[in-house]
Amino acid sequence: MASFLVNGLPARSVDPGDRGLMYGDGVFRTLSVMSGRPLNWPRHYRLLTHDCGRIGLEAPGESTLCDEIARVAPGDAVVKVIVTRGRGGRGYACLDDIEPNRIVAAYPPAPVVPGEAHDGVKVRRCRLVLSEQPRLAGVKSLNRLENVLARAEWRDPGIREGLLADSGGRLVEGTMSNVFLTCGGKLVTPELSRCGVNGAQRERVLDLAGGAGIACEIRDVAFDEIEQAGEVFLTNSIIGILPVVALEERRWAPGPMAYRMQRLVEDDDARGR
Amino acid sequence: MASFLVNGLPARSVDPGDRGLMYGDGVFRTLSVMSGRPLNWPRHYRLLTHDCGRIGLEAPGESTLCDEIARVAPGDAVVKVIVTRGRGGRGYACLDDIEPNRIVAAYPPAPVVPGEAHDGVKVRRCRLVLSEQPRLAGVKSLNRLENVLARAEWRDPGIREGLLADSGGRLVEGTMSNVFLTCGGKLVTPELSRCGVNGAQRERVLDLAGGAGIACEIRDVAFDEIEQAGEVFLTNSIIGILPVVALEERRWAPGPMAYRMQRLVEDDDARGR
Repeated sequence: MASFLVNGLPARSVDPGDRGLMYGDGVFRTLSVMSGRPLNWPRHYRLLTHDCGRIGLEAPGESTLCDEIARVAPGDAVVKVIVTRGRGGRGYACLDDIEPNRIVAAYPPAPVVPGEAHDGVKVRRCRLVLSEQPRLAGVKSLNRLENVLARAEWRDPGIREGLLADSGGRLVEGTMSNVFLTCGGKLVTPELSRCGVNGAQRERVLDLAGGAGIACEIRDVAFDEIEQAGEVFLTNSIIGILPVVALEERRWAPGPMAYRMQRLVEDDDARGR
Repeated sequence: MASFLVNGLPARSVDPGDRGLMYGDGVFRTLSVMSGRPLNWPRHYRLLTHDCGRIGLEAPGESTLCDEIARVAPGDAVVKVIVTRGRGGRGYACLDDIEPNRIVAAYPPAPVVPGEAHDGVKVRRCRLVLSEQPRLAGVKSLNRLENVLARAEWRDPGIREGLLADSGGRLVEGTMSNVFLTCGGKLVTPELSRCGVNGAQRERVLDLAGGAGIACEIRDVAFDEIEQAGEVFLTNSIIGILPVVALEERRWAPGPMAYRMQRLVEDDDARGR
């Protein structure tokens, strides 16, 4: 179903001694490829490089990755780029001479759910409380068991996403998305200095909003502030920008800020062509 | 160097779509095998089963695992048993019909460091502060990036282990070991309800000490209590029981409690024969 390149070679398998499997010792990013073109690529690459640096890994070269993405995803696809610390024996200590492993995986495009970008989606609040680890905050590491456990809290296909708080009762993110609110005309998204993943789509929305003269705030957001928000929307590199229309009993009308950001993102993708 | 069985079959590789690699979605235990006999096996198996349950995985059957350990490690070895959620496409949600993957890996026995069990070892305090996630506390999950980062803080081979605290300044564990102190004749080890890994050797030491009439306390331990401890020792299923003789400026004489626990553990291993 998926096709994989491991260090540039077609592969159906990885070394079972890879530290990515042993310890989650690696990072990844997931992106959309349309007609062979990786969308929002500069931010994805910058964040991947940043994440590698945060855990002390050398990042793959940009042209190497671009070549490999082109080979594995010549058309439309979801592509996942994984960088692990490599094969490293047993034990947490890293031998000096191990080489990172680079996995580029192409999956079929995500199924489009008709109408959800326009009509919006329902979300829930997850019971799982995110742990706080400033050393890994913002990083999309391979340690994602919290996300897995949070996503396992519900099976209702009518609930698109679960929102997560930290132990201080602050809104952080969704299980697979970042969250934006509007408050008095301003765009607000949680700071990710304690936990959470800094998504490339989040970065792009902040950049594009700033460029369009929309005031943005990155700050701590009490979970209960959502109740007062004029709008709530989710950002993710695969599903795009989704208005939230329901969180438990609270209802919102979709747009107009979410629609505006959708157009800005579409224009940005078109400009990249 | 290592030999692997994946779901009972000899393998040099695992599926790159395995959720163990993608998300650290799995658990593991590491044990010593001597002359084909896995030491402290009942506790290892019970803890593995417990950990599987904590993340919603079905545990492998005991006889299956015993057979596979016997095949992969007929003599002396370090064996790692990994259970992952299996191959599960892209995204955190788990499809109902995926089967866990079971990896049994045999490594050469750990090199014995002459004298350290008797003369003791030096440790340091890690700068990394453990995050608190009660949902995973005690569980030996594949999300071990904190341990990797903590272990990467030092290269001095004279430092055997790094001790870790949580954000409340409580002693939790070492990067690869559990920690015991003696306080007024009692054996004290940190509670692991917020973070940390509950090692099979820790369980055994508590059981054996209790059986020998030694009072044990499992409780919160302020990191600074170490200063007042009569003795400090580390427990780990591979390295056994190691007296700590130095933490920064503080010095201890090794034993007698550490020596006593070493003998109880040796006797327990011998009884298992």
